[in-house]
Amino acid sequence: MVTSSIKTLEGSISCSPELPQGSVGYVRPQSLFFDEPLPLSSGQVLPSYTLAFETYGQLNADASNAVLICHALNASHHVAGLYENETKSTGWWDNMVGPGKAVDTDRFFVIGVNNIGSCFGSTGPASPHPITGKPWGAEFPVLTVEDWVLAQARLADYLGIEKFAAVMGGSLGGMQALSWAISCPERVANCVVIASTPRLSAQNIAFNEVARSAILSDPQFHGGNYYEHGVVPQAGLAVARMVGHITYQSDTVMAEKFGRTQRAPAEDGGYHYGYGVEFEVESYLRYQGEKFSRYFDANTYLIITRALDYFDPARPYQGDLNKALEGVQANFLVVSFTTDWRFSPERSREIVQALLKNKHRVSYAEIDAPHGHDAFLLEDARYHAVVQGYYDQIAATLGLGTRQRTTGVLAA
Amino acid sequence: MVTSSIKTLEGSISCSPELPQGSVGYVRPQSLFFDEPLPLSSGQVLPSYTLAFETYGQLNADASNAVLICHALNASHHVAGLYENETKSTGWWDNMVGPGKAVDTDRFFVIGVNNIGSCFGSTGPASPHPITGKPWGAEFPVLTVEDWVLAQARLADYLGIEKFAAVMGGSLGGMQALSWAISCPERVANCVVIASTPRLSAQNIAFNEVARSAILSDPQFHGGNYYEHGVVPQAGLAVARMVGHITYQSDTVMAEKFGRTQRAPAEDGGYHYGYGVEFEVESYLRYQGEKFSRYFDANTYLIITRALDYFDPARPYQGDLNKALEGVQANFLVVSFTTDWRFSPERSREIVQALLKNKHRVSYAEIDAPHGHDAFLLEDARYHAVVQGYYDQIAATLGLGTRQRTTGVLAA
Repeated sequence: MVTSSIKTLEGSISCSPELPQGSVGYVRPQSLFFDEPLPLSSGQVLPSYTLAFETYGQLNADASNAVLICHALNASHHVAGLYENETKSTGWWDNMVGPGKAVDTDRFFVIGVNNIGSCFGSTGPASPHPITGKPWGAEFPVLTVEDWVLAQARLADYLGIEKFAAVMGGSLGGMQALSWAISCPERVANCVVIASTPRLSAQNIAFNEVARSAILSDPQFHGGNYYEHGVVPQAGLAVARMVGHITYQSDTVMAEKFGRTQRAPAEDGGYHYGYGVEFEVESYLRYQGEKFSRYFDANTYLIITRALDYFDPARPYQGDLNKALEGVQANFLVVSFTTDWRFSPERSREIVQALLKNKHRVSYAEIDAPHGHDAFLLEDARYHAVVQGYYDQIAATLGLGTRQRTTGVLAA
Repeated sequence: MVTSSIKTLEGSISCSPELPQGSVGYVRPQSLFFDEPLPLSSGQVLPSYTLAFETYGQLNADASNAVLICHALNASHHVAGLYENETKSTGWWDNMVGPGKAVDTDRFFVIGVNNIGSCFGSTGPASPHPITGKPWGAEFPVLTVEDWVLAQARLADYLGIEKFAAVMGGSLGGMQALSWAISCPERVANCVVIASTPRLSAQNIAFNEVARSAILSDPQFHGGNYYEHGVVPQAGLAVARMVGHITYQSDTVMAEKFGRTQRAPAEDGGYHYGYGVEFEVESYLRYQGEKFSRYFDANTYLIITRALDYFDPARPYQGDLNKALEGVQANFLVVSFTTDWRFSPERSREIVQALLKNKHRVSYAEIDAPHGHDAFLLEDARYHAVVQGYYDQIAATLGLGTRQRTTGVLAA
């Protein structure tokens, strides 16, 4: 039995007149402590843990309108709305989730949850070890997508949600949605998998390995126990982020955004002939890397990239994805983006084919968008219309009523 | 006037019965010292320098059969043949250059030259500064493709070659060939540009910047003066090489070579749940990175990636490549490979279009090959046949006689 306590369930949502139309308003994270051990894929056990989460909208009487949003590499439970604190930070999928938006919080009760291993509120390598009280550091267990799903399922239990109207995510979040449909088939009515893949390719793993090598070889990493040295492997983490960033964008979009524009040409309009920032794209990458290395935890980066590498639901079936998806009960929406070379449309089509092979219901949209993998986070009318249409259908099926307002990009 | 001396012009070529058919045989590098200062694009001057080079075949009486081969990032003047020393190392383009091969040393006098800034024999950042006697280190000037061409032209002067039958290169070597045709139009009869580009894209520069960041942030780099500390920034250089390696290969070839194969599965056939080598592709990348970091110089890596970034012959013409190629006199062969996503066929076609616009003679081949950018170094019958056909035509035009034998992949 889960014994748990919500630490900061206050305020939840408040609206103020200056908020943009379609925002869920000001939100506050909540936090739930589980003192039931979590058995992990690795065979290790996490003795206890906290999950940080946020909710938007109201859970209906029969708890049939819940939507779980799973996050990708560097995101968190802060999916929508605004923080009232000095960060004023907006949820990472605020353009997708809100009253009248594609995932309409007038009708759906939406949950964002931070994965264990993260550094944004849920228990992770920087959290105190329950016995020593010192940060877990290198001792924190390696996690899998399946571990995250198990932890999320306990949160669903606590919130009284037996079956989700939808589990949804992009990229690594899409893997979690897929994993939910496989491991808890009776708990997922709809599965929305965006810009994702049923498994990483060798090239995907290779990029992750470059990122990890940069972190592991940073002398400030101290074998993962940098917390006690009062340092962080900032340089390694910055390089890791830089290489990641390149893979999130299409060649075309980088060409359009940066081209070969110089940051600040020399006096004669020429080059500086040095190894500092010469081109805009270098400035952008260095900025992104440096910013990331100030707020993200290096051990979390290792955990998340490894979970990506390890995800392979067809593995127990000798690589047969058809077999892996045989028992799912959810209906699916699968979305990919033409210029996404990290998780290309071909990867999404593998999922679609395996679902069709099993005669499952699946809608598939390949969105012609220039932004590469990042497209799943961006506003794109066609993309959002597809998701909105799908959720309207879910609402109709579940008798959640019709859309009362249309906001955001969809109203444009 | 160039005052120069050949330091080790001995032996040149000897044949032994166990050599593979089509080999130019055992070769020895030569080395030429120039005490004439070299003015550089940056405005700096290299007071004196040495060029390491190798030659294969015989220069004919009117010096009309010379071919200059320019090298790419990590290669050298050792283009063909074998070293008799313990390395037994084979030239990097041995499958292309030799008696009866595509570039037929029975008819052509082929020169491989190591670029200044390198770490394989020509003057570079590890060489002693002529005044202090200590390694140049961070003081070594930033170089451009144009600087290399100027240095190579002086070697040509010394060897008595007024006009090359062909200047040829792949990748960065292709940029040098193109630059030769632009800056010394009357000295290049044919220009062979393989798997290259008229300028790096933002994505290309971004990958270079990741590599440089890994090196620059390695504490062992010591601002470029690691020589005097008795260390090398091995970790940074390894990461740089790893990221480079990914871009040289196609996603498809990595999938075929490595897939998701585990290096040594755990006892139960499962994962190890750690950050050591789990997948074959990780093992491969780490090996490549580690190997590279033991023989390559970090400052050289910076110099070469920057020269790549800076190359942009259309820059003086506000980006108009047509204008940049207006004055070339050479005939061109341009070759690209379908799966090369580093320098894609589109980039080669830009060169071809600009040449056609100027009514220059150009042959273009887009080779359907799975190996990505690396394809230019590999044996591929169609690719080598295209190059061979082109060189046979050059030989016919110059009256160098007909092919006496056909060896290597072409004879298969």
